[in-house]
Amino acid sequence: MAKYVYCFGPHGTDGDASMRNLLGGKGANLAEMAKLELPVPAGFTITTQFCSVYFREDGKFTDSLKQEVAAALRQTEETMGMNYGDPDNPLLLSTRSGARQSMPGMMETVLNVGLCTRTISGLIKKSGNERFVYDAYRRLITMYSDVVMEKAEDIEPEEGQGIRAQLEKIMDRMKKSKKYKSDMDLTAKDLKRLCESYKKKVKEVLGREFPDDPEDQLWGAIGAVFKSWNGRRAVSYRKIEGIPGDWSTACNVQSMVFGNMGSDSATGVAFTRNPATGENKFYGEWLIDAQGEDVVAGIRTPNPLNEETKSEQNRHLDSLQQQWPELYQQLDDIRTNLESHYKDMQDIEFTIQQGKLYMLQCRAGKRTGTAALSMAMDMLHEGLIDEPTAVMRVEPAQLDELLHPIVDPDAEQMVDPIASGLPAGPGGACGQLVFTSADAVAAAKQGNNCILVREETNPEDVEGMRAAAGLLTARGGMTSHAALVARGWGKCCIVGAAAIKIDLHGKSMTVGTHKLKAGDTLTLNGTRGLVYEGELPMIDATENPCLQEFMQLVDDKRTLGVRTNADTPEDAKVARAFGAEGIGLFRTEHMFYGKGSDDALLRLRKMILSKTVEERRAALDELFPFVKGDIKATLEAMDGLPVTIRLLDPPLHEFVPQSPAARKELAAALGISTAAIVKRGEQLHETNPMMGHRGVRLGVTYPEITEMQVRAIFEAAAELVNEGKAPHPEIMVPVTCDATELNVTKEIVDRVHAEVQEKTGVAVEYLYGTMIEIPRACLLADELARSAEFFSFGTNDLTQMAFGFSRDDIGGFLQNYLDENILEADPFQTIDTEGVGQLIQIAVIKGRSARNDLKIGICGEQGGDPASVDFCFHARLDYVSCSPYRVPIARLAAAQAAIKAKK
Amino acid sequence: MAKYVYCFGPHGTDGDASMRNLLGGKGANLAEMAKLELPVPAGFTITTQFCSVYFREDGKFTDSLKQEVAAALRQTEETMGMNYGDPDNPLLLSTRSGARQSMPGMMETVLNVGLCTRTISGLIKKSGNERFVYDAYRRLITMYSDVVMEKAEDIEPEEGQGIRAQLEKIMDRMKKSKKYKSDMDLTAKDLKRLCESYKKKVKEVLGREFPDDPEDQLWGAIGAVFKSWNGRRAVSYRKIEGIPGDWSTACNVQSMVFGNMGSDSATGVAFTRNPATGENKFYGEWLIDAQGEDVVAGIRTPNPLNEETKSEQNRHLDSLQQQWPELYQQLDDIRTNLESHYKDMQDIEFTIQQGKLYMLQCRAGKRTGTAALSMAMDMLHEGLIDEPTAVMRVEPAQLDELLHPIVDPDAEQMVDPIASGLPAGPGGACGQLVFTSADAVAAAKQGNNCILVREETNPEDVEGMRAAAGLLTARGGMTSHAALVARGWGKCCIVGAAAIKIDLHGKSMTVGTHKLKAGDTLTLNGTRGLVYEGELPMIDATENPCLQEFMQLVDDKRTLGVRTNADTPEDAKVARAFGAEGIGLFRTEHMFYGKGSDDALLRLRKMILSKTVEERRAALDELFPFVKGDIKATLEAMDGLPVTIRLLDPPLHEFVPQSPAARKELAAALGISTAAIVKRGEQLHETNPMMGHRGVRLGVTYPEITEMQVRAIFEAAAELVNEGKAPHPEIMVPVTCDATELNVTKEIVDRVHAEVQEKTGVAVEYLYGTMIEIPRACLLADELARSAEFFSFGTNDLTQMAFGFSRDDIGGFLQNYLDENILEADPFQTIDTEGVGQLIQIAVIKGRSARNDLKIGICGEQGGDPASVDFCFHARLDYVSCSPYRVPIARLAAAQAAIKAKK
Repeated sequence: MAKYVYCFGPHGTDGDASMRNLLGGKGANLAEMAKLELPVPAGFTITTQFCSVYFREDGKFTDSLKQEVAAALRQTEETMGMNYGDPDNPLLLSTRSGARQSMPGMMETVLNVGLCTRTISGLIKKSGNERFVYDAYRRLITMYSDVVMEKAEDIEPEEGQGIRAQLEKIMDRMKKSKKYKSDMDLTAKDLKRLCESYKKKVKEVLGREFPDDPEDQLWGAIGAVFKSWNGRRAVSYRKIEGIPGDWSTACNVQSMVFGNMGSDSATGVAFTRNPATGENKFYGEWLIDAQGEDVVAGIRTPNPLNEETKSEQNRHLDSLQQQWPELYQQLDDIRTNLESHYKDMQDIEFTIQQGKLYMLQCRAGKRTGTAALSMAMDMLHEGLIDEPTAVMRVEPAQLDELLHPIVDPDAEQMVDPIASGLPAGPGGACGQLVFTSADAVAAAKQGNNCILVREETNPEDVEGMRAAAGLLTARGGMTSHAALVARGWGKCCIVGAAAIKIDLHGKSMTVGTHKLKAGDTLTLNGTRGLVYEGELPMIDATENPCLQEFMQLVDDKRTLGVRTNADTPEDAKVARAFGAEGIGLFRTEHMFYGKGSDDALLRLRKMILSKTVEERRAALDELFPFVKGDIKATLEAMDGLPVTIRLLDPPLHEFVPQSPAARKELAAALGISTAAIVKRGEQLHETNPMMGHRGVRLGVTYPEITEMQVRAIFEAAAELVNEGKAPHPEIMVPVTCDATELNVTKEIVDRVHAEVQEKTGVAVEYLYGTMIEIPRACLLADELARSAEFFSFGTNDLTQMAFGFSRDDIGGFLQNYLDENILEADPFQTIDTEGVGQLIQIAVIKGRSARNDLKIGICGEQGGDPASVDFCFHARLDYVSCSPYRVPIARLAAAQAAIKAKK
Repeated sequence: MAKYVYCFGPHGTDGDASMRNLLGGKGANLAEMAKLELPVPAGFTITTQFCSVYFREDGKFTDSLKQEVAAALRQTEETMGMNYGDPDNPLLLSTRSGARQSMPGMMETVLNVGLCTRTISGLIKKSGNERFVYDAYRRLITMYSDVVMEKAEDIEPEEGQGIRAQLEKIMDRMKKSKKYKSDMDLTAKDLKRLCESYKKKVKEVLGREFPDDPEDQLWGAIGAVFKSWNGRRAVSYRKIEGIPGDWSTACNVQSMVFGNMGSDSATGVAFTRNPATGENKFYGEWLIDAQGEDVVAGIRTPNPLNEETKSEQNRHLDSLQQQWPELYQQLDDIRTNLESHYKDMQDIEFTIQQGKLYMLQCRAGKRTGTAALSMAMDMLHEGLIDEPTAVMRVEPAQLDELLHPIVDPDAEQMVDPIASGLPAGPGGACGQLVFTSADAVAAAKQGNNCILVREETNPEDVEGMRAAAGLLTARGGMTSHAALVARGWGKCCIVGAAAIKIDLHGKSMTVGTHKLKAGDTLTLNGTRGLVYEGELPMIDATENPCLQEFMQLVDDKRTLGVRTNADTPEDAKVARAFGAEGIGLFRTEHMFYGKGSDDALLRLRKMILSKTVEERRAALDELFPFVKGDIKATLEAMDGLPVTIRLLDPPLHEFVPQSPAARKELAAALGISTAAIVKRGEQLHETNPMMGHRGVRLGVTYPEITEMQVRAIFEAAAELVNEGKAPHPEIMVPVTCDATELNVTKEIVDRVHAEVQEKTGVAVEYLYGTMIEIPRACLLADELARSAEFFSFGTNDLTQMAFGFSRDDIGGFLQNYLDENILEADPFQTIDTEGVGQLIQIAVIKGRSARNDLKIGICGEQGGDPASVDFCFHARLDYVSCSPYRVPIARLAAAQAAIKAKK
């Protein structure tokens, strides 16, 4: 027979922190605290396992459970020296949910259970506070009728007609008739009358009496907690977070203690260290004569915990340290005890009831990236944790926050934002307001930081966006132009700040009552999406020695290499600064996109429009110096490190202009008719271009294109060698599906290599390899590895082909697929380990079976996604490659994968 | 030390027919015949193995080879009673290539080797025929200078300047100056003079004397034979046929015998049975005083072999049986001997030299499909071969020829075609000439067979094409509209008959000198692409009891099931008649294409243009009766057999009309604006529709579409059950990539099944399964098989995704890929066993691991391809499914796969 009830408290605790799956997070930590002999109000946890039984038995409590609960309740009563339902010395209980993973606010709680006609007078006598008791009773009726009698019974009232709303209306009416301003004005007598009205209303609306029997109340409350596991909010939250439905929740039944029993009572929340900065100071807030929710609600300004963490806003209030030094000391000792026990920063809740301290909760505290980093390194130096643990303490996603200058969190705490929007680009920025791209460029030229504010941005704003320190738009979402550009550059950006009204003509903006004009100073927190008036101090986290020390630690633990995807020498330099160990993907075609590409693009188009091999060769000759120059600069930027250069990949029709104007311009430039351009465009048109004439297929049809590119690579490398540099080009063939494609291409590579050696006297050292992005290539990887010295998984295309999902068209059904749990995540963001992962595994095993020193990497966009990095580590890849700003994130994810694997 | 030379002939033979790889096909069969004590002129074979040595040694003959050849030559001389190079009694030799697989005409031969100044007079004396000897000498010089002195030396003369052409010019000049009409007019003296001129010309053009030493001649000729293995023609032929370059050729050196030594000499070719009809009669042609090439060349009409096979064309000529009864008897005995030895019809060459019969060649004879069938069954009944061998004797591709009425081959032999084109649709057809679709329909209505002749066809001709017995176009290739439509219907069709000039206005056509007008009779042989004037008799091969008996045999040997892909009740009936054991693919969407689909299509479009779920449901309700009716008729046609019904597959935008006119019409019909249609079309537009919103993805987004289809299936089946029929629907989900897709869809299927049972009282029996056409589905087949009761491989899409080849766009590079040997075949025609095959294997193994009675089939176009059927057998599939006309072909291929596997 399974044990379903676990006691905790001073007189005996059955569970501990390791029993999270059985007792839920809250129950396990209450047990652990009790074991540490901290002052936890006694109680017991009904296990998650019973919750499953409860659902299987259609919401019935078994006799054996009832016996276990009765025994546990007896122990609780003994410990607390009170009895549940006792008219003279009544014990009140709370019932709270608690799953193995925190689901904040998604499930139900009922407090003050056990308060009824029979126990009210005893409690009044005991507390000496009639008002407190009727207030507690009012709260119980409200909470119970809502949670137990309505929600748990699947009653779905119309909007605004729920029992809670109806009860609140009664209270509002009373306050209005008595002209009270606040709930605090209600007297004991008022509350007593209110409770009577409440009970009548409950009967009227729900057709049942509010239960006046403590037993009924308790079992109703326990059942409601369990049922809330399958409540609508919880189910949809689980769907989003991917929490399995069969995990279930535990139910914690605990003695009530009251922070609102008078001026000798209080309640508070605290962190063992500062969760915003990581500073090793006890940090928290508390309120006299209050309940936990009052601290959070923000109606009263909470008091500071101690002297050293007082802020501008609460300097005038007494700290707990001042008010009750002994209680503070007791709490501070508990803090030390908890940190040395859990070896991590804890988030705690406490209550002081009539001068006695109780601990209600403790859990690992949430923290900012800065705090996570700082705490990890501090705790390492304090000897609290070891190096692997320190590395595990910072989430890769948090690192993003640390790679950009950020608003000083201390300073930020002091002021209110004037507006908020979507956090589209991380970090902080501060500067003069400008309203046009030209003004931004002008400001930058004068050496002034500026914030570019726009209704929304378009490609014409790009120069100004580049020049500005930060971007703010009134419209647009996380995928708007501004957001995409900003993230690509790692620039601070807030989009969709709807409260902003821009007067472009008058070069000013208003936000509520604030009016700002060009030249005024603004500060953005792009990580949180907050806009501040004036200048707030910044911290440049990349120069943070703490970060540098941390990344050193990360690299020590890491075995997987990290390269970058970079198409320009500039990107290469940025990535190198971020610790990239080479380029995993240099796309030759990217030189034809974007700024300054006009000349090269024109020549590429000329090549595409060539009618004969001779014409094409001539056009390629013209194109050659552009390609070579670009490659040479990139090899130079990565001097000494490998650079994987992918041969031309996209189908040629991508480069044929579509608009009549662009066609006309091209026709004039090339001296041909627009009709010829239209015709070539039609010839090249494809129904499914992603599976069309691209990649190595182009090289098979037009070997002269491959030849030109390969010559550019070898000549660029040879020149660098002659200049004393150490280039390491790796030639990568894209879209390969058969070994013969590699052999055909290799013939050209070998021939050109010999010719360049002949011409320059340099035998360029290089590797020859292939993208693995076609399922067939994975299946025949052993054959491919006979020619290829390296593989690089192109997981974008591999995902497309494995699923049969066109990345461009997935929008039509992706959301349905996520909603129906067909997909756990967008497979273009995180590698689908089940399907695509199998193909990768097959390719790795077969590839290495044919060539045991085969170098294997990944250059799809998932290369910077922590979960995907973890997969790549386990798939025994040699490196991942990602965009420059994700390089540190990938380094950390790689280190964490190695540490987790060792455990 | 390897033995490189193998003798054959009456006095000792080293090889036999089993040594094909070493001796080549010709050498092995010469040895075999010699072993059978047939009168083979003595000689020897230098092995293919030596050919490899020869190339490795850069074209040198080793001393050991020279010794082996000398010994073999001595044996040959002894056997023939002549000596090579002997002035009085000279032996002449032939040198011929012979690879393990026949490569007709691709390599070189040199005849009359050993004729030189020293031996000419001896041969004249011996043969008593000076003209014969100088004619032989002339031929030797021509052949030798061309093959040995020019081609084998890699000399590449300009067009028309080759030595052969130059020598022929000399002869032409002589004939002109002497006013001779034919080579036969040249006298011995003329030929002697010609030989002198020839030798001078050779010296002049090639800079070397024509060798006058028999030894030089012999080694030169042997070397040239070997070198021709790497000649341009041979190499490109090997590429096309996929023959490995390292197989090499053998060289056969054999005593010359002459059919042109006078009126007691002759030469002939024969088949042990009639290769056109299969009739068990000795069939062949011969000529007195002639060489082998004369029989084939067609300058003289050859004589018939015997009395019973005389034809209209040669009835007036003496048969060998009449002329030389004893020799004929000897040959007929050899025929019996060979057939009982080889147990197959043989193609033989013989020569009679001065009254003595020699056998020069024997090999399995090529035959028509009709002949192959007839011989197989005859030989089975004769006890010559067993059942498996009989089944193996007909190639699946030959069966195609047997499934359509064909032109009587005997009759066809009597007449010349007036035109030829590409054989686009098999079988024969005969009827009145018509030039328009309307005329074809009219003729059919009157019960007259007609042949529709068009420049090329377009969709508007479809009615007429359906009505006509056969189609003939002047333009277009094997993938033209006419060819595609005709093959789909199994209709006789010839396309691209360029010689035809059509006068549509005058309703007539001319072909060369023939003028034909509407109403004239024409006969088409669509299997061979030949057009005849007038009516030729037809044979309806499907009614052939021999075919029925053969197919019975086929089904006895077969284990793999054969179903058909059929979208209409009509197709289903045809396929059933061809032996289909069910439908493997019924495409619900096909009811919206083609004739009579307007009403259904309009309702489908209405559904697509719906803006809300409610509108869509209403439109689906209107569509329902069409879908149900179509399904019911098909289930009824396949009564008692399984019918796999695929849920809607194509992306919806395929059904939104593109042309302004069609949009306008639709807008009017639906009472909406054309703008709304354009907008919806744009919404639905996809960049890569093949990987877009299609298949099960549609059902996930619009579950009401799935529901309508499933309801149609169950209601149709229930009604049939109530009518006493036995429907076996199998519901197939397309484009599945994840098990959850199947589960989501199954919920609908289960619900509707229960609802239909409620409504009709029938619990329809059915299977639920999925297409496997996405690589990920193969990899996760075990998970899929938990929901799916059957798999059907959609190898079209699977090939697309596995290769990343868009079928619509592969034209841009397919030819390059075939040329470069990257692909052995078009993977959309024949399953790529290496890559796609691996995916199929994975899916079969994983699928059966989760459900061991999982039914597995294939419904891609490759299902009717014999090589693919063989693969499916080995992959342990349960059935293949193919278009109706390919069902018998698939049945045969399946039987052959089973037989081959048993061996």
